[in-house]
Amino acid sequence: MADIATRVYNHKWKIDPIVRSLIDTDFYKLLMCQSVFRNSPDTTVTFSLINRSKDVRLADLIDEGELREQLDHVRSLSLTRGESTWLRGNTFYGKRQMFRPDFMEFLEGLRLPAYHLDKRDGQYELTFEGPWPQVMLWEIPALSILMELRSRAVLKDMGRFELQVLYARAMTRLWEKIQAMRALPDLRIADFGTRRRHSFLWQDWAVQAMIEGLGDRFTGTSNCLIAQRRDIEAIGTNAHELPMVRAALADGDAALRQAPYDVLADWHEEHDGNLRIILPDTYGTEGFLAGAPDWLAGWTGIRIDSGDPATGAETAIRWWQSRGEDPRGKLIIFSDGLDVDKILALHRQFHGRVKVSFGWGTLLTNDFRGLVPGDGLAPFSLVCKAVAADGRPTVKLSDNPAKATGPAAEIERYKRVFGVGVQQALSVTV
Amino acid sequence: MADIATRVYNHKWKIDPIVRSLIDTDFYKLLMCQSVFRNSPDTTVTFSLINRSKDVRLADLIDEGELREQLDHVRSLSLTRGESTWLRGNTFYGKRQMFRPDFMEFLEGLRLPAYHLDKRDGQYELTFEGPWPQVMLWEIPALSILMELRSRAVLKDMGRFELQVLYARAMTRLWEKIQAMRALPDLRIADFGTRRRHSFLWQDWAVQAMIEGLGDRFTGTSNCLIAQRRDIEAIGTNAHELPMVRAALADGDAALRQAPYDVLADWHEEHDGNLRIILPDTYGTEGFLAGAPDWLAGWTGIRIDSGDPATGAETAIRWWQSRGEDPRGKLIIFSDGLDVDKILALHRQFHGRVKVSFGWGTLLTNDFRGLVPGDGLAPFSLVCKAVAADGRPTVKLSDNPAKATGPAAEIERYKRVFGVGVQQALSVTV
Repeated sequence: MADIATRVYNHKWKIDPIVRSLIDTDFYKLLMCQSVFRNSPDTTVTFSLINRSKDVRLADLIDEGELREQLDHVRSLSLTRGESTWLRGNTFYGKRQMFRPDFMEFLEGLRLPAYHLDKRDGQYELTFEGPWPQVMLWEIPALSILMELRSRAVLKDMGRFELQVLYARAMTRLWEKIQAMRALPDLRIADFGTRRRHSFLWQDWAVQAMIEGLGDRFTGTSNCLIAQRRDIEAIGTNAHELPMVRAALADGDAALRQAPYDVLADWHEEHDGNLRIILPDTYGTEGFLAGAPDWLAGWTGIRIDSGDPATGAETAIRWWQSRGEDPRGKLIIFSDGLDVDKILALHRQFHGRVKVSFGWGTLLTNDFRGLVPGDGLAPFSLVCKAVAADGRPTVKLSDNPAKATGPAAEIERYKRVFGVGVQQALSVTV
Repeated sequence: MADIATRVYNHKWKIDPIVRSLIDTDFYKLLMCQSVFRNSPDTTVTFSLINRSKDVRLADLIDEGELREQLDHVRSLSLTRGESTWLRGNTFYGKRQMFRPDFMEFLEGLRLPAYHLDKRDGQYELTFEGPWPQVMLWEIPALSILMELRSRAVLKDMGRFELQVLYARAMTRLWEKIQAMRALPDLRIADFGTRRRHSFLWQDWAVQAMIEGLGDRFTGTSNCLIAQRRDIEAIGTNAHELPMVRAALADGDAALRQAPYDVLADWHEEHDGNLRIILPDTYGTEGFLAGAPDWLAGWTGIRIDSGDPATGAETAIRWWQSRGEDPRGKLIIFSDGLDVDKILALHRQFHGRVKVSFGWGTLLTNDFRGLVPGDGLAPFSLVCKAVAADGRPTVKLSDNPAKATGPAAEIERYKRVFGVGVQQALSVTV
């Protein structure tokens, strides 16, 4: 068990790489990467860092030299033999050889491509451009690095015991959350907190606390390195970047309208069972489900990642019913802005009506709210998204207009094509 | 910085000696030992463990084999070269060579004498008998071992993360106490918590937290090993055992009445300055001060170790005034059952009227109250006292009848000789 406070203290006087492995990333990135490697290997994409929390002035907090050092370190990484063996040999979602040999060869030869870094208005402009299967793997390490460098910046003037007590408080808080969830019948919850984690060691601690505190109710972590080290399940399916890129490449409105279903048709061919999870909100959940082909209703579940989660889940349940499916056999995964109170309320509302699962992110791996003066460790909303594909801008609408990305004119076009009406804006804190 | 939770976890599967050094003891034991070595080397004494908290059934909690193993380990210890060098060369209370060469030679050759261990009514009967300068050094290691074995027994079925969160909570609690004391002007506070500590590592953590949190206001620790390792002052002067043994050996009431002053006359000859601290409560503070010779009023201070501390301090102040001394030049050391609220209140009442200092014990080094089910880690009142000298029973009255020790008939005789009237009984929790 690492002594986190001491390690943070040591950051002050020696270089300490934040991301030390190419599999210190989310499992679904690798799953999606395999799909992209097969279906769209030659698409060129641009990923870009977007800090939705403008008041957190990252370029003022984080030294550019340190940031470059950390990013350069990631570019020096390649898959180790043990990591490769684990990816090739491990059972994921009950399936052996989830990753095909040609994809594994690609991954074994991979080094992450170059990055572009500038500063503007107190923020870093960090972009990655190149072949989609390479560039997409920058998302998680880039976010982890920026999150942890921000933590280090805030902590660097604190004394050794102040640090230890800070972590003592954060540990106690997390443990109390875990205790509160113990009583939930049939709870299924996973760690989705890699991208917004306070630090690698802290995520690793949080995962271990979940293992001890929740036993079987803790279903695993999205982080492959931690899943490997702690011998637990790696968790994840697919994300917005697949429909976003496919949509950007669609020629004309009809192809655009079809793009999100085309993505899932590919996925349907590649995966079955628990990997068949619909993420319906990229261009509005209501329209997506209304226009969905019947074979999608046969999928295992739906992940609710924006908008009011209870509303989204009720919509999903009504949709299944309208398609003649029994919701009690279906899985709903909540993964947006969860904390323990919301988890308890959603569990109460939906347990028994549908299988419920939670992907707990930022407030599992980065809840240091109120623990330093000025709340300098409060989580904030940093993302790293595909912003262009083969030179065309990407668009995301989601069920919350505060989460929309893309040029304004394109957003309007997408809203028209996908029939998205007035949306309720919800504040995005994490 | 040690990872305490991991260490406690490891206790479950390997032997881990609790007391690893002969100087893992209170400084005043060594000071008193030197005085005894000089003045009463041939006195035979019996020290005995007394658990005032009968509901804590130590013999049910602690395995006898483990207890013997720990006690035997202490008997295998001798002063290391580095420890000897530190005792010989270090400055204590501004004075070099506090320990005389003949005493150091004795100490370098010392191994602790045999112990006698029995069980009765769920308690251990642990006694040490032999030459006073040897036997007296058992007090602190014996108490530390029993306290820590009790902690280990309570913790042994807890999970790894439960343990880490337990310590996280205890750390947070202590840090909050320290924060609360930061604002006190001219605060002077020392660690007196060796004998009742939760564990060695925890005491060491507490001391380091005091160093960082209080800076110069933390004046040092009574624990020699920690003082050496953390490069801070070793703190302490004298204790009840000196007058208790001297009184037991006194022939007749007149000699008995004189014994407490005789002890301090020896001390006066041996020490000056900050080591001239009166501990007036052994046979009642009021009578002791009323009958004290004038040269005692010239001493540096008074330590208040039983009874209501504010009452004791007011008594001391009135006594100095009655002897023509200015209390503002005098030191009062509070050392009985302190916690942060009492410290704040006493500081408020006496700051500016007298120099105030605190010897913070059990609730510095062992405040785990309420942190485990059934409150199994709550501190309790364990002492190890001189119960006989050259075959005669010793007696302590103190300013709290709950702290009195000795045969009932002898207690009555002492009360008569020292003119102790009705005393207010205060509960003794630590």
